Amino acid sequence: MGVFPISPGQSIGILGGGQLGRMLCLAAARLGLDAVILTPNRNSPASRVARRTIVAAYDDPDALKRLAKLCKVVTFEFENVPATATEILNGLGAEVAPSPRALAVAQDRLEEKTFLNGAGLPTVKFARVDSEAELKTALRRLGAPLLLKTRRGGYDGKGQIWVQRASEAADALTALGRIPCIAEAPADFQREVAMIAARGRDGEIALYPLTESYHENGVLRRAVGPAAASRKIVAEAERIAATLLTALNYVGVLGVEMFERDDGALLVNEFAPRVHNTGHWTLDGCTVDQFEQHIRAIAGWPLGPTAATHRVEMTNLLGDEADAWPRLAREPETRLWLYGKGGARPGRKMGHVNRLSALRK
Amino acid sequence: MGVFPISPGQSIGILGGGQLGRMLCLAAARLGLDAVILTPNRNSPASRVARRTIVAAYDDPDALKRLAKLCKVVTFEFENVPATATEILNGLGAEVAPSPRALAVAQDRLEEKTFLNGAGLPTVKFARVDSEAELKTALRRLGAPLLLKTRRGGYDGKGQIWVQRASEAADALTALGRIPCIAEAPADFQREVAMIAARGRDGEIALYPLTESYHENGVLRRAVGPAAASRKIVAEAERIAATLLTALNYVGVLGVEMFERDDGALLVNEFAPRVHNTGHWTLDGCTVDQFEQHIRAIAGWPLGPTAATHRVEMTNLLGDEADAWPRLAREPETRLWLYGKGGARPGRKMGHVNRLSALRK
Repeated sequence: MGVFPISPGQSIGILGGGQLGRMLCLAAARLGLDAVILTPNRNSPASRVARRTIVAAYDDPDALKRLAKLCKVVTFEFENVPATATEILNGLGAEVAPSPRALAVAQDRLEEKTFLNGAGLPTVKFARVDSEAELKTALRRLGAPLLLKTRRGGYDGKGQIWVQRASEAADALTALGRIPCIAEAPADFQREVAMIAARGRDGEIALYPLTESYHENGVLRRAVGPAAASRKIVAEAERIAATLLTALNYVGVLGVEMFERDDGALLVNEFAPRVHNTGHWTLDGCTVDQFEQHIRAIAGWPLGPTAATHRVEMTNLLGDEADAWPRLAREPETRLWLYGKGGARPGRKMGHVNRLSALRK
Repeated sequence: MGVFPISPGQSIGILGGGQLGRMLCLAAARLGLDAVILTPNRNSPASRVARRTIVAAYDDPDALKRLAKLCKVVTFEFENVPATATEILNGLGAEVAPSPRALAVAQDRLEEKTFLNGAGLPTVKFARVDSEAELKTALRRLGAPLLLKTRRGGYDGKGQIWVQRASEAADALTALGRIPCIAEAPADFQREVAMIAARGRDGEIALYPLTESYHENGVLRRAVGPAAASRKIVAEAERIAATLLTALNYVGVLGVEMFERDDGALLVNEFAPRVHNTGHWTLDGCTVDQFEQHIRAIAGWPLGPTAATHRVEMTNLLGDEADAWPRLAREPETRLWLYGKGGARPGRKMGHVNRLSALRK
């Protein structure tokens, strides 16, 4: 722990060059810290605002050696970081935060839900599915329908399929590539909420206001923070987030996505061991946003305040929606964030807008 | 004007790699614009967050050619840009904003005050001083003491000296290097105020709340925005700023420094044709800060709102004061901005803090 806190003038390593890395770079710069990006892509969104970029595969030993030489602490902006990368970095004396343990749990949906339940946190019912027989057993035990998901990989609604009956089991498994899966019971929720939560190196915890999130086709469309919610719901979400941070001995920011059921109970859907799209509203709604908070946490700095200063409605700009920037730039209540991506493929996250209004009492 | 507005994905050129350039880079990035820095210094604060850096003298024709090829619009973060640089850039088809005219006026204190008076804006009394005889005449006509300043160069209180009587004239001129000077009568002010003002390519004007500023040894120490001030003072400051923007046919952000006299009259001290230290409070006190506003203006975008969301007290961190970052990072009301500078020479601006409080009604 002798290297912490990381001092201004030193560098933070970031695996991944997407928009989350980009916004981490901007936050690091405010605090006088340099960012070094490792990404396989040239001209990544993050590289444009980073001190240095190493263009290489995430598990390239030479690249990781260069990164470890420049940075005493390395973080990541996506959860599918290969385990070998973190092992190599640790072996070279670079601390990876959040920890490889948090990463491993989050990378496997079966491990994740098992871990959550083990920590006393509620999820939907689920079953391991490695074969057609196991899927049929799950349908019998948990009832139909079930949401079949690959245990690893998949995001934004990819790698999952609903199974209504036993006769569909074989096709469903084939559609997902016959790899290890998890079958989940429906959540029967009235809405989705999320909490951005941070934990420092000394165990200090800072929780942001609850966020309400809206998905379309498995992709986050909108998020509103602070969410309108009863004190009881907020307290339960805070209990869930704090319990998870502590159980993982977590360092950094994470996003917990939850279902709010009709009876007011919260179920954890999943967590992301990184800054999260449902927390982009904090960029304009809180004095310390999730990106600065993450940098503070992994650098061993004290955490910042998390209270909201504005109510913010965040809307993702997908594909050519970002072409509306001239109109959006004209809206006085709207703060525009564009990610510097070249090609506007349909559905690709090109930016977001934060629309500000006064806090509701 | 066919190149405006500059679209996301395009680049903004910035002459100068200091902290103002750095904060311009961060603002440009939020809007999806890349920044290209031209600076003679390696590892400048701005370079660490810029897409590209060209390390060369400001008047290096090859460097300017590279810059003009990358950027349709070029701005600057300091006012002593050599006129040849802007001429070369214009010749290469790159638009320089603010205009070379604004730069030329601001670079020469005699031209500046003459221009201000010509636009109907009040200043202290002053006289051209090219010789000992002229300084003695000025002392006779304007009275003593006078503040003798070099017409060009000098900043943060450098290049100026008080002259009490005619017998000191020769020594004073020698101390300043016997170059063209201006002699100014004292302002007899009760406090200093400043206004950050922006003008877009279509003539749209946006004015920030009045700022109160406090200098020590000629260097800005603190600035508070919005300043406590009567409606009359604010209106007069707004009239001055708007008149100046229009008279210069200005594009971008400028900072006007003013003296508030005991009788409530405002005198213009000077203006800086760029983002300004007295506007750093807007980073945390307004939804669109002066840096984003400048980028919007020069890129031909609509200007953003300027209303304050918080009262902010900005304090510069000079020299080793920035070493207090671990304590400052712990203050919940304090937002820390560090510039990524290597050597903390005494008096050097290493960063600033913005201390937030609720707006006063």
